[in-house]
Amino acid sequence: MTETFQSSDSIRSGRPLKYAQYANLGPVELEMGARLREITVCYETYGTLNAAKDNAVLICHALSGDSHVARHDSADDPGWWDLGGLVGPGRPVDTNKYFVICPNILGGCRGTTGPDSINPSTGKRYGRDFPTITINDMADVQKRLVEHLGIKSLLAAIGGSMGGMQVLAWAVRHGHMLRGAIPIATAPRLSSQSLAFDVVGRNVIQRDPNFHGGAYFDHGTVPGIGLAIARMIGHITYLSPEAMQEKFEADRYRPRDVATEFEKKFSIGSYLGYQGDKFVELFDANSYLAITMAMDLFDLGSTQQQLRERLCQASCRWLVLSFTSDWLFPPSQSQDIVSALLACNKPVSYCNVASACGHDAFLLPNEVDSYGTMIGSFLGHVDNAHKTASAHADNAHRTASAHADNAHRTATPAPAENAHGTLSVGVGTPNPTAPDSPTNIFTSRRLDYERILELIPPTSSVLDLGCGAGGLLGRLARRGHANLVGVELDERSIIACVHRGLNVIQADLNQPLPQFANGQFDVVVLSQTLQAVRDVPGVVNEMLRIGHQCIVSFPNFGYRKLRQMMLSAGRAPESAGILRFKWYNTPNIRFFTISDFEDFCREKDIHVQRRIALDTEAGKEIHDDPNLNADLAIFAITR
Amino acid sequence: MTETFQSSDSIRSGRPLKYAQYANLGPVELEMGARLREITVCYETYGTLNAAKDNAVLICHALSGDSHVARHDSADDPGWWDLGGLVGPGRPVDTNKYFVICPNILGGCRGTTGPDSINPSTGKRYGRDFPTITINDMADVQKRLVEHLGIKSLLAAIGGSMGGMQVLAWAVRHGHMLRGAIPIATAPRLSSQSLAFDVVGRNVIQRDPNFHGGAYFDHGTVPGIGLAIARMIGHITYLSPEAMQEKFEADRYRPRDVATEFEKKFSIGSYLGYQGDKFVELFDANSYLAITMAMDLFDLGSTQQQLRERLCQASCRWLVLSFTSDWLFPPSQSQDIVSALLACNKPVSYCNVASACGHDAFLLPNEVDSYGTMIGSFLGHVDNAHKTASAHADNAHRTASAHADNAHRTATPAPAENAHGTLSVGVGTPNPTAPDSPTNIFTSRRLDYERILELIPPTSSVLDLGCGAGGLLGRLARRGHANLVGVELDERSIIACVHRGLNVIQADLNQPLPQFANGQFDVVVLSQTLQAVRDVPGVVNEMLRIGHQCIVSFPNFGYRKLRQMMLSAGRAPESAGILRFKWYNTPNIRFFTISDFEDFCREKDIHVQRRIALDTEAGKEIHDDPNLNADLAIFAITR
Repeated sequence: MTETFQSSDSIRSGRPLKYAQYANLGPVELEMGARLREITVCYETYGTLNAAKDNAVLICHALSGDSHVARHDSADDPGWWDLGGLVGPGRPVDTNKYFVICPNILGGCRGTTGPDSINPSTGKRYGRDFPTITINDMADVQKRLVEHLGIKSLLAAIGGSMGGMQVLAWAVRHGHMLRGAIPIATAPRLSSQSLAFDVVGRNVIQRDPNFHGGAYFDHGTVPGIGLAIARMIGHITYLSPEAMQEKFEADRYRPRDVATEFEKKFSIGSYLGYQGDKFVELFDANSYLAITMAMDLFDLGSTQQQLRERLCQASCRWLVLSFTSDWLFPPSQSQDIVSALLACNKPVSYCNVASACGHDAFLLPNEVDSYGTMIGSFLGHVDNAHKTASAHADNAHRTASAHADNAHRTATPAPAENAHGTLSVGVGTPNPTAPDSPTNIFTSRRLDYERILELIPPTSSVLDLGCGAGGLLGRLARRGHANLVGVELDERSIIACVHRGLNVIQADLNQPLPQFANGQFDVVVLSQTLQAVRDVPGVVNEMLRIGHQCIVSFPNFGYRKLRQMMLSAGRAPESAGILRFKWYNTPNIRFFTISDFEDFCREKDIHVQRRIALDTEAGKEIHDDPNLNADLAIFAITR
Repeated sequence: MTETFQSSDSIRSGRPLKYAQYANLGPVELEMGARLREITVCYETYGTLNAAKDNAVLICHALSGDSHVARHDSADDPGWWDLGGLVGPGRPVDTNKYFVICPNILGGCRGTTGPDSINPSTGKRYGRDFPTITINDMADVQKRLVEHLGIKSLLAAIGGSMGGMQVLAWAVRHGHMLRGAIPIATAPRLSSQSLAFDVVGRNVIQRDPNFHGGAYFDHGTVPGIGLAIARMIGHITYLSPEAMQEKFEADRYRPRDVATEFEKKFSIGSYLGYQGDKFVELFDANSYLAITMAMDLFDLGSTQQQLRERLCQASCRWLVLSFTSDWLFPPSQSQDIVSALLACNKPVSYCNVASACGHDAFLLPNEVDSYGTMIGSFLGHVDNAHKTASAHADNAHRTASAHADNAHRTATPAPAENAHGTLSVGVGTPNPTAPDSPTNIFTSRRLDYERILELIPPTSSVLDLGCGAGGLLGRLARRGHANLVGVELDERSIIACVHRGLNVIQADLNQPLPQFANGQFDVVVLSQTLQAVRDVPGVVNEMLRIGHQCIVSFPNFGYRKLRQMMLSAGRAPESAGILRFKWYNTPNIRFFTISDFEDFCREKDIHVQRRIALDTEAGKEIHDDPNLNADLAIFAITR
């Protein structure tokens, strides 16, 4: 491998940054105590800053990214998020509406001050003398740039991986300047495993004999082997095992025809060798060390309590996204962020997007219909909430939900959804009451919703477990409730909720819900979901723990018509609505009656405050022998 | 780091191998065409070879292991499997009963000929001239050793990780000398991801300037940095993310007090640095390259068809084990091995042992109660089958099952099990018919088993889906059926089946069963399990695909008493036996009647050959209106 070092000044080889702009921001004091006498930030912008200067979106790049997030015109080189198609006219981050700013990070090697920049004190490159920087320093420099551009408040900050860490740092440190935060595939701090890979990568670079303690410029060398190998390790961690298998199994023993001195016996080896070599041409080793160390030092706390204390300082709305097959930044770490935000009643939506692409999913087009759509919807609602708030001099994020249903001016097309809202069970099963039949007794008027709404005091906070596409929550939002959260498992339903501007959290009701605190909500609703839940006592316990008052509705299998069906036909009952399924494919797995539920409450010391029994077909309340005459029951319960 | 190279001759530093023996086995022709003029094998033995020379167990070690699998006496250094406690007097591999042989592998650096041995042609170390070796070569050399010891047939070969690959190679190449094979946490070939880590590890070593193209001995150096870093990468892959978190999160920023020149900023870094340095003292870099390349080249085929063709050559019994959190050798690869063996009707049991320890689980004590117990049981049955076969001049593995129930002479204590055999549902739910109540109407006589047994023709092959602890299979074994396989999800039930000498495969009935071929079994049984299955059409389809004849038994929810309970009490029925659960915690999630099932068969074009309706309480068959009068139904069905 020839390690010709082709950089000139601080811009290394690779494509030229035709549209780059530079801001000289003067001196900065760094978090760890050192001082940089002057810094330059290289950045690119897309779209137009409006007169109010309130349509700016900051994009924070990951480890090896740069300011070139997207092409500026058709002749331009593609940017790092063009494959995913995230930024541009008509795209989720719509440059027809938003003013997008993407700066190269502090410590980088693509224009912003970093270890390969000239140290004004010596006239030579910093190299080994570049001080330890942190993610907070990166965010602080970005804030200086934003201010330099005359912007007082960002519509949103968006970033994946280490870019997501910058978004978290923004929210914690400069939350007053941020209305929306979208951290993607990131973590409050690295897992031990991910940290370990970084440590090994740094060891390889630092023990490369061409490293010379970081002073390789002085020796006319670069630690190219070390840097290439560090990059190879990184590449393995960016892909899921499935994606690697898919990509390299068919031609396992046929190495690709690339020029590399690394092992080329296997297809995967030639790929890694090529990626490693290419990276050496584009990236500076000291920069790699500085940035990975910043990532490794990022730490919002070792406990949920600490994380909560930090994140509670932010006043923005949140959309947190992770990917199921990401093992470098596993979804559980995004869920920790979400739990902390929920604990301080921050408006947050979360989706663990189903993907086979691993950590790289956030850069790829595969799942953009899902996560891109949510980003587009979310930005639209944050924008509208702000406009509404400006108009009414009202609190921005409080009204966002209330205006959710008529705020359909988002960039992305609306996902398919039912106007009435579907009910989905939140336990990984087909939707038992999807209104696919015109004769469905539950969807014509939703008498059950009407009665449930009557039970919920005005302005109370509500958690809807198994919220589906947000039918009930949407009604509550229109009625003016401020603090509304839905829990749902189905990704399409979550996309629909985000589209409506509702706060929705992806979770499985068969698991505990530690992300919600004791007594956190005035009301917890479980609407026509209990019969599809495997762990019935578990979900009821969680409801009673989280809510001061709980509302449970369910179909009554003691209903006369159902008993008769069983008795006369000797068959499992089947009917319209919730019973339109066959015994062998119904999502309903718990068959119980009003009396059964009352026994259950007695047995578990649950206090029944109110029981409403309905004949939904007749559209009336039942008072005479409900266990026989009602097809649906609504219970208000407390511990 | 000081890389003092302390080895003398071919034995490197570290503990001396006090009990090592050496066999000079003359020249070997290698699979890739090269020839070694003479080889020495270093090995250790434990226990006593009996007069018949038929009690020998071969232990195959992994990448960095050696001949010292266990201590020989209390004063001896611990062996690499002593932490797990696998080999020794009274242990699963019981040296009071078995003669254990553990050789250092070909290419190793702990006594057996490898790259750091003296090349007799030159009088110098092989170094870079050591030829490419394969796992097959390792197995062939082990076979030569076994013959050298006068042994014609091994009771079993056991190995984890790369040791498991040697077991597979043994079965394919020398299957006639092997009665039992226990591959643990291994693969028919590496995943792309695992291969990638090996490639990076080799690149680090080979690009270490002290490597000198492998001729580092001639330069008085060792590529210690490269080897240490390769080892660090390996260490990360041996642990699960959970195990790493557990081990290094509490003291994340407090590096351990170890002497290393590698990065020591984080606890995990100090650990990896220490492990890397230590490894350099114990291991030879050329050996590491040769062995990892052998592992990477091991390949039993890129398709299941190829894998099948190779494994079908083996005539031994199999126990295949994997660990749920192992991501280096993921369980799906062990499942591929199992599928191939099943496809050629080989006697095999498989368990994916629940563990948080990652790949290292096979070396640790955490799960030894589970996997160690199965190994002990399996060896006992292979041994007994052989003794029986020797005595009766009969086929060994055919009678093993038949003798299963009275073969309780295994080393390990019997797992808790019920004498009647429990029925467990194979879908991750509590056992619906566990005989925990003396009044249980189903366990007093098991009238249903009696009738099912009548439906199964003598000598037919039988697959029991949801076999539990093997109650039905045990009865069939006693009746002399040779080809019996159970499918079960619950680990304790699998341990019980292995203890009984039954062939049992861990699988989830809610997923397809591609490991079984169309028409592979004469009879497929689904006994009192259908009511607990989520995907009813799926499991019935799979039965009909796999079996020429299928037998399904289930409780009839149309039974008069149950209808009356519902009608009069207005509550979900609850009774003894299978109905002793509450509506909210029953594993039964499908409520159907005999008529429902008949409708289902009609609708799905399933042919009902025979219907038996029972009143199990009265202990009699029902002919008059079974849908009303029977509590249990048995159907014989075909497509």
